Order: sequence, then structure tokens, then C-alpha cells
Amino acid sequence: MAEQLSRTIKMIGSLDEKAMDEARARQDMLTKPQGSLGRLEELSIQLAGIQAKPIPQIKNKAVITMAGDHGVVAEGVGNFPQEVTAQMVLNFLRGGAGINVLSDQVDARIIVVDMGVAGELNADARLLSRKVAPATQNMTAGPAMTTEQAIEAIEAGIEIVNEEAGKGLDIVGTGDMGIGNTTASSAICSVITGRPVAEVTGRGTGIDDQQLAHKVEVINRTLAVNKPDAKQPLDVLVKVGGFEIGGLAGVMLGAASHRIPVVIDGFISGAAALIATALAPDSRDFLIAAHVSAEAGHRLLLKYLELEPLLDLRMRLGEGTGAALGIGLSESAARLLAEMATFAEAEVSERSEDS
Amino acid sequence: MAEQLSRTIKMIGSLDEKAMDEARARQDMLTKPQGSLGRLEELSIQLAGIQAKPIPQIKNKAVITMAGDHGVVAEGVGNFPQEVTAQMVLNFLRGGAGINVLSDQVDARIIVVDMGVAGELNADARLLSRKVAPATQNMTAGPAMTTEQAIEAIEAGIEIVNEEAGKGLDIVGTGDMGIGNTTASSAICSVITGRPVAEVTGRGTGIDDQQLAHKVEVINRTLAVNKPDAKQPLDVLVKVGGFEIGGLAGVMLGAASHRIPVVIDGFISGAAALIATALAPDSRDFLIAAHVSAEAGHRLLLKYLELEPLLDLRMRLGEGTGAALGIGLSESAARLLAEMATFAEAEVSERSEDS
Repeated sequence: MAEQLSRTIKMIGSLDEKAMDEARARQDMLTKPQGSLGRLEELSIQLAGIQAKPIPQIKNKAVITMAGDHGVVAEGVGNFPQEVTAQMVLNFLRGGAGINVLSDQVDARIIVVDMGVAGELNADARLLSRKVAPATQNMTAGPAMTTEQAIEAIEAGIEIVNEEAGKGLDIVGTGDMGIGNTTASSAICSVITGRPVAEVTGRGTGIDDQQLAHKVEVINRTLAVNKPDAKQPLDVLVKVGGFEIGGLAGVMLGAASHRIPVVIDGFISGAAALIATALAPDSRDFLIAAHVSAEAGHRLLLKYLELEPLLDLRMRLGEGTGAALGIGLSESAARLLAEMATFAEAEVSERSEDS
Repeated sequence: MAEQLSRTIKMIGSLDEKAMDEARARQDMLTKPQGSLGRLEELSIQLAGIQAKPIPQIKNKAVITMAGDHGVVAEGVGNFPQEVTAQMVLNFLRGGAGINVLSDQVDARIIVVDMGVAGELNADARLLSRKVAPATQNMTAGPAMTTEQAIEAIEAGIEIVNEEAGKGLDIVGTGDMGIGNTTASSAICSVITGRPVAEVTGRGTGIDDQQLAHKVEVINRTLAVNKPDAKQPLDVLVKVGGFEIGGLAGVMLGAASHRIPVVIDGFISGAAALIATALAPDSRDFLIAAHVSAEAGHRLLLKYLELEPLLDLRMRLGEGTGAALGIGLSESAARLLAEMATFAEAEVSERSEDS
């Protein structure tokens, strides 16, 4: 395995139990019935454990949105043309996409990365070019990428987080853009979770029943040709992955190595999380599932990862839109823990045991 | 019925279908697969219908948190002493409560209202005093309040919204504080929905099984003594309500009369919504359910109102905390509709019908 990747995996620790105990104790002193902030209390305690701070801080926020194209679109698995990937990258740069609006609302900077968009994008200071290749190979005919490319993609993600961590980063969200990437994600999901392809394959941007049956058939054919080894996450990424998916797995590993919480978006980020957590099981504790998407298989994927989503709004846009909302809720959780008064500070009576 | 209340009810219109059609058409032109923002798209269309604007705006935001005490606490239905209501009002004014943190995050002003806190609160420019009486009567012995008091409470809510609307108000959240108010809310919920008391009564701030059985018994006794008429919402408020609950019902009616969306918080706001929508069925369309709380009966109450909650985070704090999060999501919905680029503007290809 590549040197930087193994070094990063070795750096991933576990949640800081002492910080979590202190956060838990503080939650019970705040002016509210114990436990009455529900999931937000649990989230604040996880954030404390990740950041190893009794009072975690969420100020510097970023969403990393990675784009890549997929050779498998030649099989006709979706209903948007491949050129949309590049067009949407330009939309991100101009500020017109969903992720721009939601990142702005939660005051998160966006890092847009070309991990492998087909064709050439004009140089743009706002675009990070880490292009591994212009699209993956058509995975129905053989591996989507080489082992070297898979490692390059993951390490790009690690390096981007390293750089952002240097600028100050308290939380990071993951996002994706790539026509065809629900096909790759379903393939990854089927291999790693061991569930049948039909169960983890959905309508992506909105295909009909016939197209869905075709997509399932394409993925089954892909798996029969490539025979990815479920125990070897790198082999899975090589054979049925995508450059943006590998990059996002790298973002997750890199962030975990820096003790930075990662808010994962929808199904594609979930597929990346399957790769990341298979490479480094401890990285799971650094992940926060923003939402469960409308894409079939995402709920199952989150259950496999034992992650409870914060939101269930039937979203299926990707880009990091769910992650941006999840960053907002993570900030809520951290601010409640940090800023609420304790019973003693506010001179509020605590519960009596007998009335 | 009181003059201001009837006038307000008459002013409540219906959703603007033309604005909703235009919002729907715009959603389908934005750079995303159609419907891929799920619940946020539906919410943006509802906001358009409420504000009667094809592109609704959520800039001026407020949470109205109303406090009141309940005579029924003499029966030992909770486990916090009554003085906590007043203490928490002071906590709101000093900025130390959960609602302060979350309102600040979504940039909503807070209006804290004394609707009927037991004892005297010191005059404070930040506190709106609309005290109907220092706590309701113990409803196990007779009506919680007089008809005049019920009308005074509702009209106070209407007047507060009238005043805030004059300052500029694009959305309002409702919040409550009142030791004992889950007992009143369960009673209202049982009467109006027709479900057994045991089914709609929960643990409030965290009571045990024995206390819960006692609370159910107290509510059943209350209903037997008062015999509230389920068809007469004012009678229900008089006999088993609370001043803050009446006030919040007034906020909902007043906001609906101004075409201002109302984000309702948890179980107590839900009980107020049962009163408001029974008084003015059209007001329902102006309500947005922020979340489903951990309080038993809230899910059933929302189902009765046919409102789909945005969040399910097992919160049960009240104060408007869920509403503040719901205001944030409503702003997300409105901003996505307003700020995303269309396919034409961004020069992104739309879906092809055949690939």
C-alpha cells in the first residue's frame, strides 16, 4: 500500500473518552431536562470525542465537493448526458448550484475538486485540479481504474484535507458530482455489504422501471466480469469505483487522522465511507451521517455502517447538499453545549426527586 | 366570540395557487434532477403559497416564546418545581437557554412573553408582559380559566404578531415554557383528537412509570370534572388549557391572517395548533411542523393535523428550540428556490429522454 495512505491510516485514533465524559457531564448541568435535546446531545458528545475537547468548536467549516466521470455511462445507465458533470462543476464555481446556496447559509467554504472529469476544464483559481484521468474505464469490460489510480485518488483526498486543516478546519462535509456515480456506488455497496445488487440500486437522477432493470443488469454484469474481493477495499475501488469516490474516501481518512469530524452526504459519500471504513475501521467514529437520501440502498448502507442519519428529507441531489445541512445541525449541537447556561449559573432549580 | 378574534379568523385566506404553480415551475427549471431536493422543494412551494410570492423570502425571522404556569402542578404531575417557569424566563432574557443559542444561530429575534407566570417578574424591557393571571386554576377542580381569560390569551397572541408584522416578519416560530404544560397539552390532545388519555400522555421533563400513571389519572379526572366539548375549541382551552397555549394559538391565527408562515415547535405548540385549527381550519395550511418530539402523543397529534415534521431528533425541550431549527430549514428551502441557477442560466444540459 502507498506510503502516505498507510501513514494516514496509522494516525487515526479513537474517540477521546475523557472529553466525552466531560461533555456528557456538562450536558447534564445545562438548563434543560436531562436528555431533552435528544440526538443533538449525542452529537455534541461525539464531536467532543472526535476533537478531543470537552467543549468542541465548530467555526471553520468546509464542504469538499469532488467531481469525476464514469466510463460506465456508455451502457446508458442514467438520463443526463456525461457533459453535465463538467457543466455542473462550472455551476459550482459560479455559485449557482444547490451546494453553493446551502454552504453559504451555514458559512462553509466550498472546495471544488476535479478528480476525473471527462474533457478539459479551463484553468480556474477556484477549481482544484487533481484529475486522475478523464473518466474511469467502462467497468463492464474490466476494472474502472488501475491500482495506482485508486491510490492517487485516495491520496489526493488526504492531501486536500491536510492543506485545509492547515488553514483551520473544525468540520468538513463531503460532496460529489459525477454522472453515472450512483451505478458505481451501488456496485461498491453490493460488494461490501454483501446485499443483492437489486436491493441497493436506485433511480439516481430519476430513471424509470425499465431503466432501473437495465442498471441492475449492468452492475451484475460488471461484478461478474471483475469479481471484486469484498475483503480488499482497494480492489473494490479499482474494479467498480470512481475517482471522486476514492477521493472522498481519502477526505474521510485524512480528516479522521486530524480528529476533524466528517459530515457525510448521501449515497455516493456513503459508498466512499464503505471504502474508508474498510481500510481503517476506526475512521467510522469520526463520521456523522447528515441524512438518509431517497436513493434505494442508502438506508441499508447507513445501517451497515451503524450510522444514524440526522435528517430524512427525501433528498437525492448529492453535491454535499445534505452534508451542508448536517454541518448546520452539528454547529447547533456544539453551540448548545458551549453556550447554554448551567443550572447554577442561571440560578434555576433542578428537578426535585419526589414531586 | 370576541371581536378581534373573529376579525382575525375572517382574514385568514387560503394558499395562493398561482404563486405555488410558479414556484413549482421554477423548481423544475433549477440545476438539479427534478424533485431531488425532496421535502425542501415541497416546503418552498408551501412558503410561496403562504406568502403569495412565487419566490418567497425568509429574512426577518422571530421566535415567540410564551410562558405560563399551571394550577394543576398542585397534583404533582411533574418533577420540576413551579418556580422554574419564572427562573427560565429570566434565563431566556439573559440569553442562557437553548432557544437563545438556536435563535441566534438562525438569526431570529426572540420575543419572550409572560402570559401567566406565577408570581411577579421584575419589569424588564426585554420581557413582554401580557399576564392574564398568575397561573391557571387547578383544572382537576374546575375550569383552568374563564372564557374572558381564554379570549384575552388568544388576542394577546394576535396582537403580538400584529406588532411584529409591522416591524417586518417573514416567518415566525412558536415556543413555550410552563411547568405542567404537557399535562394541559395532553388533555387538549385527548379531547380534540378523541384518543384515550393514556395514548397521548408522556413523560414531560422525564417522569417515571408511576408518575406517568398518576399524570394519566389526573388528566382523566380533569376531563370527568370539566367535560370539555370537543366541538368547541374555546371551551377546551377554557377547561383544560393554559395561558401560553391560548397565546400561541393566537400567534398562529394572527400570523396566518398576515400570510406569515408559522413554524410550530413540539407538543405544547401542537396543542395550541389543535385549538387554532379548530377555530380556523384554513390556518392549518400556514403551519410548518418543525419536528416530531420524543413526547408521546406528538406524532399522533401531527398525523391528526396532517402535518409532516421536518426533523425527528428525539428533542423534548420546548422553548421553540425545534422551531428555530425548522426556521433554518425553511430559510434553506426558500433560498434554494431563489438563488439556484436555472439550466438555461447555467448552460447545463437537461435530462435526455432516451439515454
